[in-house]
Amino acid sequence: MNAEIIVIGDELLIGQVVDTNSGWIARELNHVGWEVTEITTVRDRAREITDALDSSFARVDVVLMTGGLGPTQDDITKQTLCRYFGGKLVFNEGVYAHVEEIFRRRNLQMNSSTHDQAYVPDVCTVIENPVGTAPVMWFEREGKVLVSMPGVPVEMKTVMKESVIDRLRRHFNDHSAILHRTCLVKDFTESRLSESLACFEKQLPAYVKLAYLPTPGVIRLRLTARGDDEARLQPVIDSEFAKLRVLLGEHLFCDSDASLAGALGLMLARRGETLATAESCTGGNIAHEITRVAGSSVYFKGSVVAYSNEVKEHVLQVSPRTLEQHGAVSRETVLQMTVGVQRLLSTDCAIATSGIAGPGGGTAEKPVGTVWIAARYGERDRADCFRFEGDREQVIARATQSALLMLVQLMTE
Amino acid sequence: MNAEIIVIGDELLIGQVVDTNSGWIARELNHVGWEVTEITTVRDRAREITDALDSSFARVDVVLMTGGLGPTQDDITKQTLCRYFGGKLVFNEGVYAHVEEIFRRRNLQMNSSTHDQAYVPDVCTVIENPVGTAPVMWFEREGKVLVSMPGVPVEMKTVMKESVIDRLRRHFNDHSAILHRTCLVKDFTESRLSESLACFEKQLPAYVKLAYLPTPGVIRLRLTARGDDEARLQPVIDSEFAKLRVLLGEHLFCDSDASLAGALGLMLARRGETLATAESCTGGNIAHEITRVAGSSVYFKGSVVAYSNEVKEHVLQVSPRTLEQHGAVSRETVLQMTVGVQRLLSTDCAIATSGIAGPGGGTAEKPVGTVWIAARYGERDRADCFRFEGDREQVIARATQSALLMLVQLMTE
Repeated sequence: MNAEIIVIGDELLIGQVVDTNSGWIARELNHVGWEVTEITTVRDRAREITDALDSSFARVDVVLMTGGLGPTQDDITKQTLCRYFGGKLVFNEGVYAHVEEIFRRRNLQMNSSTHDQAYVPDVCTVIENPVGTAPVMWFEREGKVLVSMPGVPVEMKTVMKESVIDRLRRHFNDHSAILHRTCLVKDFTESRLSESLACFEKQLPAYVKLAYLPTPGVIRLRLTARGDDEARLQPVIDSEFAKLRVLLGEHLFCDSDASLAGALGLMLARRGETLATAESCTGGNIAHEITRVAGSSVYFKGSVVAYSNEVKEHVLQVSPRTLEQHGAVSRETVLQMTVGVQRLLSTDCAIATSGIAGPGGGTAEKPVGTVWIAARYGERDRADCFRFEGDREQVIARATQSALLMLVQLMTE
Repeated sequence: MNAEIIVIGDELLIGQVVDTNSGWIARELNHVGWEVTEITTVRDRAREITDALDSSFARVDVVLMTGGLGPTQDDITKQTLCRYFGGKLVFNEGVYAHVEEIFRRRNLQMNSSTHDQAYVPDVCTVIENPVGTAPVMWFEREGKVLVSMPGVPVEMKTVMKESVIDRLRRHFNDHSAILHRTCLVKDFTESRLSESLACFEKQLPAYVKLAYLPTPGVIRLRLTARGDDEARLQPVIDSEFAKLRVLLGEHLFCDSDASLAGALGLMLARRGETLATAESCTGGNIAHEITRVAGSSVYFKGSVVAYSNEVKEHVLQVSPRTLEQHGAVSRETVLQMTVGVQRLLSTDCAIATSGIAGPGGGTAEKPVGTVWIAARYGERDRADCFRFEGDREQVIARATQSALLMLVQLMTE
């Protein structure tokens, strides 16, 4: 089944806000075997919204729309869709009671513009939005479906997960079962991995597919089985997954759909071990990636962001001689940083970074993008020098992923 | 002048990658007074690319395209555009020499697929891509322009800034001068600020516009003057900006187009003061926001991410009695965290957070989203309790912004 997404909002077209909703929707639909074939981002203008809708409906039967449902004057999606589907706005008691309830919960006063939230088109089905006041609207016409959802991510995600996806599948008679097994693989490029798995892919039953989702350093592999009977699919996907495990051996380091930081966390939790980070050029981003994972407090004790040499010396006990002789961006410094933070926070593992994220600070010998990374696991350690391309943001992001991966490598050696 | 953006790539339509390019392009065009009216994201399919292009050219004269220019087989943008504009691919010596040069710089071996990068349509003008191997192609037809750029952000940004924007302006005879002055304003909602500035807005010359770009807690105000003669615009925008300063007084806390962390950094740099953070629930994200700003090492010494109580006690010297009596998520704890980190890293200012980012860990008294934040400036401090809505990621993001703002407030009291 193909679907399109229409994203509405002036703020997106002046670049004030980055749209992360449509990527999320695409991933979720992908998970049930549906495909997003196009995403259109338009301004809060009636004509542009309906033109986009006409175009999408000419190509697909399902359109998911986000944004433009706030109580302010510039948000016109509800009125526009009401006219487009030939209805009129009517006061809806249920929606009103819900808006009141939300306001009570938030200790806010109702006013006239919030009152207007309770007017909804009489030609749509209202789907409850448990976490917000904007109505979620389901429209149908000639076998096609449009679902209009708020642009606030938590509201959109909640209604998608709690009702919209199931409802769409039922409506389009999609009763097929879909099972996924995902794993993370290291030490391969995409092309080498696909060569290695060519025979495995060939022997897969027609209803089981293998997808490659590469990221720098790590490839995410996803097996998907689709059929009528979940009870029958389960043993098939499990046995194919078991084959993957055997084929990939230690290269398969995580058997669930986790981020790299999440995969490292699972390894640590399983071993009952703890982690700390000592960050210079990544400036806290490794700790941030680790703590984005819910439950990370079980294995993550904390981090020392040692942006100044003073902190490297006084808090992490990097020797002043080392800093003087080798500089802050050196093998010796990052290794001492791991020792220092491991001791200070009493952890089993440690990661450290020191580098030049740019745009300033580069030299001929150590140009912008040069980053020393070290990992320490018990008494074992390793360190490597990287040269990342890109701007400051990209150097930080790449160094973060490389640092997490280095500890994974060290823990599985 | 209106433009549209077409973003190409399967990875975007399965939600594997978030498109940040189009927002960046929109902001940059906005800066020279051009408007992006629609963004279309399509898969790597020839028909879908050309359909999107037909639609865009029916609405606007300028289309900027990103993605689909890599050397792998799935990238078909170059071939597709070549056919669309009725040309053929020809070997380009200049492009080849450039690709060779990039490979030499990166210590990589050329192979047949990289060799193919040097074939470009004979119906386009090739614009040099100084930081990558994918060609940037400028096509014209019946007064309309299409620019195809790589999807790699650093490559796209470099060619946009170094050539594409200027070239577009020249091509469309846009020789107008545009000047901006941006500032950050606190303590206002958007509606209250626009009321306060109603008279100011009315007295502005017709060629000077005021734009409101609200974010939680802070409103970005941008004055834009547009005309034929830059020398004449400068004093006008400067004097209008001076009026804004007087009208807004202390509420205007940054007179440049900085992020909140950047604005705080400017204040610190100006006063020659230093900062450290002590983070529990934000897990390093405040430090990350601060260090995303180039040059932050001047005022930022570092951070202690104290994810476990052990670290709060042993590294930040939060008293065990406090943790026991008031809990880690309390006024007393965050205040002691600021004192502890200020002393440990010898800084003038400190920020601390402790809260429940969720999804687990909430209680009736302290539900998910409860975050205590403290700021300390010399001997003065303040602390507040917040209740943020949203998921884990949003709680962390909102707590980060609120913490930065709290220190700004304290520094300007």
